[in-house]
Amino acid sequence: MNTKKYAAEAIGTFWLTFAGCGSAVIAAGFPQVGIGLLGVSLAFGLTVVTMAYAIGHISGCHLNPAVTVGLAAGGRFPTNQILPYIIAQVVGGIVAAGVLYLIASGAPGFDLAKGFASNGYGDHSPGKYSLFAGFLTEIVMTMMFLFIIMGATHGKAPAGFAPLAIGLGLCLIHLVSIPVTNTSVNPARSTGPALFVGGWALQQLWLFWLAPLIGGALGGIVYRWLSEEPRGAVVGTAPAE
Amino acid sequence: MNTKKYAAEAIGTFWLTFAGCGSAVIAAGFPQVGIGLLGVSLAFGLTVVTMAYAIGHISGCHLNPAVTVGLAAGGRFPTNQILPYIIAQVVGGIVAAGVLYLIASGAPGFDLAKGFASNGYGDHSPGKYSLFAGFLTEIVMTMMFLFIIMGATHGKAPAGFAPLAIGLGLCLIHLVSIPVTNTSVNPARSTGPALFVGGWALQQLWLFWLAPLIGGALGGIVYRWLSEEPRGAVVGTAPAE
Amino acid sequence: MNTKKYAAEAIGTFWLTFAGCGSAVIAAGFPQVGIGLLGVSLAFGLTVVTMAYAIGHISGCHLNPAVTVGLAAGGRFPTNQILPYIIAQVVGGIVAAGVLYLIASGAPGFDLAKGFASNGYGDHSPGKYSLFAGFLTEIVMTMMFLFIIMGATHGKAPAGFAPLAIGLGLCLIHLVSIPVTNTSVNPARSTGPALFVGGWALQQLWLFWLAPLIGGALGGIVYRWLSEEPRGAVVGTAPAE
Amino acid sequence: MNTKKYAAEAIGTFWLTFAGCGSAVIAAGFPQVGIGLLGVSLAFGLTVVTMAYAIGHISGCHLNPAVTVGLAAGGRFPTNQILPYIIAQVVGGIVAAGVLYLIASGAPGFDLAKGFASNGYGDHSPGKYSLFAGFLTEIVMTMMFLFIIMGATHGKAPAGFAPLAIGLGLCLIHLVSIPVTNTSVNPARSTGPALFVGGWALQQLWLFWLAPLIGGALGGIVYRWLSEEPRGAVVGTAPAE
Repeated sequence: MNTKKYAAEAIGTFWLTFAGCGSAVIAAGFPQVGIGLLGVSLAFGLTVVTMAYAIGHISGCHLNPAVTVGLAAGGRFPTNQILPYIIAQVVGGIVAAGVLYLIASGAPGFDLAKGFASNGYGDHSPGKYSLFAGFLTEIVMTMMFLFIIMGATHGKAPAGFAPLAIGLGLCLIHLVSIPVTNTSVNPARSTGPALFVGGWALQQLWLFWLAPLIGGALGGIVYRWLSEEPRGAVVGTAPAE
Repeated sequence: MNTKKYAAEAIGTFWLTFAGCGSAVIAAGFPQVGIGLLGVSLAFGLTVVTMAYAIGHISGCHLNPAVTVGLAAGGRFPTNQILPYIIAQVVGGIVAAGVLYLIASGAPGFDLAKGFASNGYGDHSPGKYSLFAGFLTEIVMTMMFLFIIMGATHGKAPAGFAPLAIGLGLCLIHLVSIPVTNTSVNPARSTGPALFVGGWALQQLWLFWLAPLIGGALGGIVYRWLSEEPRGAVVGTAPAE
Repeated sequence: MNTKKYAAEAIGTFWLTFAGCGSAVIAAGFPQVGIGLLGVSLAFGLTVVTMAYAIGHISGCHLNPAVTVGLAAGGRFPTNQILPYIIAQVVGGIVAAGVLYLIASGAPGFDLAKGFASNGYGDHSPGKYSLFAGFLTEIVMTMMFLFIIMGATHGKAPAGFAPLAIGLGLCLIHLVSIPVTNTSVNPARSTGPALFVGGWALQQLWLFWLAPLIGGALGGIVYRWLSEEPRGAVVGTAPAE
Repeated sequence: MNTKKYAAEAIGTFWLTFAGCGSAVIAAGFPQVGIGLLGVSLAFGLTVVTMAYAIGHISGCHLNPAVTVGLAAGGRFPTNQILPYIIAQVVGGIVAAGVLYLIASGAPGFDLAKGFASNGYGDHSPGKYSLFAGFLTEIVMTMMFLFIIMGATHGKAPAGFAPLAIGLGLCLIHLVSIPVTNTSVNPARSTGPALFVGGWALQQLWLFWLAPLIGGALGGIVYRWLSEEPRGAVVGTAPAE
């Protein structure tokens, strides 16, 4: 059944990257009635809400190498599945950027040089935030994202609500941090557009792998400590999924 | 009981078309405080959220010929009910456009030539997107819409959340694609306004039947493959919904 | 226990009117970063979401004479409780307008003549919609609101989600119709601000009692017909709450 | 296990203050596509939605001294835990302001004198609302916030939805009252930024401790009265959690 898990991760990450970045490229700055950063934040969040209900029961719906690594660090995911999951996610992200390019380039005035929703820092940060600010933001945001994921999927959390909590968490992360780095917290989402934009986007891509992976692992570890039962505790129910 | 199912589909599609298109015609461009494309996207999404909780247990709450065809392609809906469902949906969409016309024409400055929320491509795309871009967008979006619907109503998905996931999925689709085609993914929603606008709206209507139906069928088929148990698997619970 | 039900209805309608109208008076037009009609729509919707989870189990959380009458027409509420419920709701709406006045008048430039979130038609419609358009809008919107309420609280609808569906339904109604009548669908919400504004607001208040009550009753009756089991049907579970 | 409860409260309040105030400082006024007060309101609300699902089962997820005091006044929280909870919350709020300062100061044009999301009244109210208006707003809003919290976590309310109801309640409170006081209803959230801004922000901080604590206690007491069973009633289920 692993093939179908990988297919689900690829399709889901396609959706996250296509619809999230698509909302930014196509609709954010539409004259007068554009959806703005609020709409883009909601779009990214809803990609996760929708996919988590649709494929959560197939692959767990990570859609993000930092989530896969963070869940492994938190003791919730087998390490021998990390690599195939990440490959599937990156493939989904790249295909998404390709389909988005086909659509977005069908409008007059389209120009890859506008950024194509790539992530960046310094001169390529939407608000010209420094490398340090970008690095710190991506670490803190991914750490808290994993903290939310670990918590909302914990066995004691209300069942069925995790997709909402996690997707709305991604929305919240974007509400704060788009001006800083255009918000990654997800190396697969960053890689797709960067391959089309090339140049600076590829040169800065390292940060959007390194910082999310560090932050994700930290989040998994912190929550694991927080939710561990003390030694000798009598536990009536099975540990979290 | 089929009469009541058809009535439910007609009322539900009335609501989707009336409130979705109504938000665009009446409130999107209101001076200074208008709801914009973000508000229109939310409105379309909430028509499905509200109706899915209200009539999901009566008719399944398709409200959309592409959903009906896609669910049939995915093995979830009997083919002999496709035609009456589609007829009920189209009737609902047309009545909605009529009631919306009665209200909207009660304001000074109302003009059908502004588009009346019709769908279009090329010169009639809000952002002047090409026919190819519009066709591809409608196929991809409807495919992913059905993928979400099939997944969120799957027997292993958390019970009760499907209306939220599906409605928020429609919201997300609009967040991305209003600038491309004004977003259809639903032939019944497209037909109502087009009949009032006439001319170009009717001439371009074919795309908003063809592309959503193709995309819907694809989405149903892809998810069916993804969620199929391997041969010989022991399945403990009944198939989805 | 009826006293506590009435108290709950009064507090809940206070919240709907205070926070809904308050968002419009205080925050909708705030310079540059105001929440606009989208924010006001969300605010009204969330008053119902929050109160329905907080007091739904105490009073049913109608907060609206049209809801009380509509549920009675739909066979879900005892007629001898209609009057005390409506009185409690109107009291809550009036107190809300009073507290809102105390706060809003604490800012420079406050002026009741700006409307204080009153409902109106013709010259007092935000978009100058005619009396006919306003009357039709209030009837259709309240009818569909009751349809959603009856459906989402039906015994076959998923348990626990009704507050979300109903509150988001009220949000949707506002997303469409604020430009038409400033959106009432609720005579208690209309009465509070009208008493403070006086003049035209009181003269037009009749419509915001008559149309919602008619629409609410229609919605209750239509859904009751739609969800009725055919004669002779074997029903395994008790009828809806 | 108390150490982990305090750690959870500190991390949760960090998230509320960091992401809520961060959305205001970083993204609210971003040129042309900024998220505005609507986005800031949503951000504050989602901090609670996400944390309540993540740590509700560990510490109850108060994240706010007024919530802790209000729940104690409502008979839901042991008084000997009030002080350590408040200390953990204030620590979280201060660390949040520090991390936000590190990030926000990485952009050109950053200036603490713009307010850094501090709360204020009179000349320091965003809309120049008076001290009286600010005091009344903070009392009413915190009272209703506790009313919602007490109700949504009541044993008869639908299980699992409380985090949504409470978080969306905080969103609603911000939708109305940011222009009045920049919205506190939470002394810990107010204290963090005030320490960095100093001067007027510290001089006005007393109100954002006093009014929320009074309002919170009132809300707890009012709901407790409303939901109390009459003497002699036969109660089939255990009292609320």
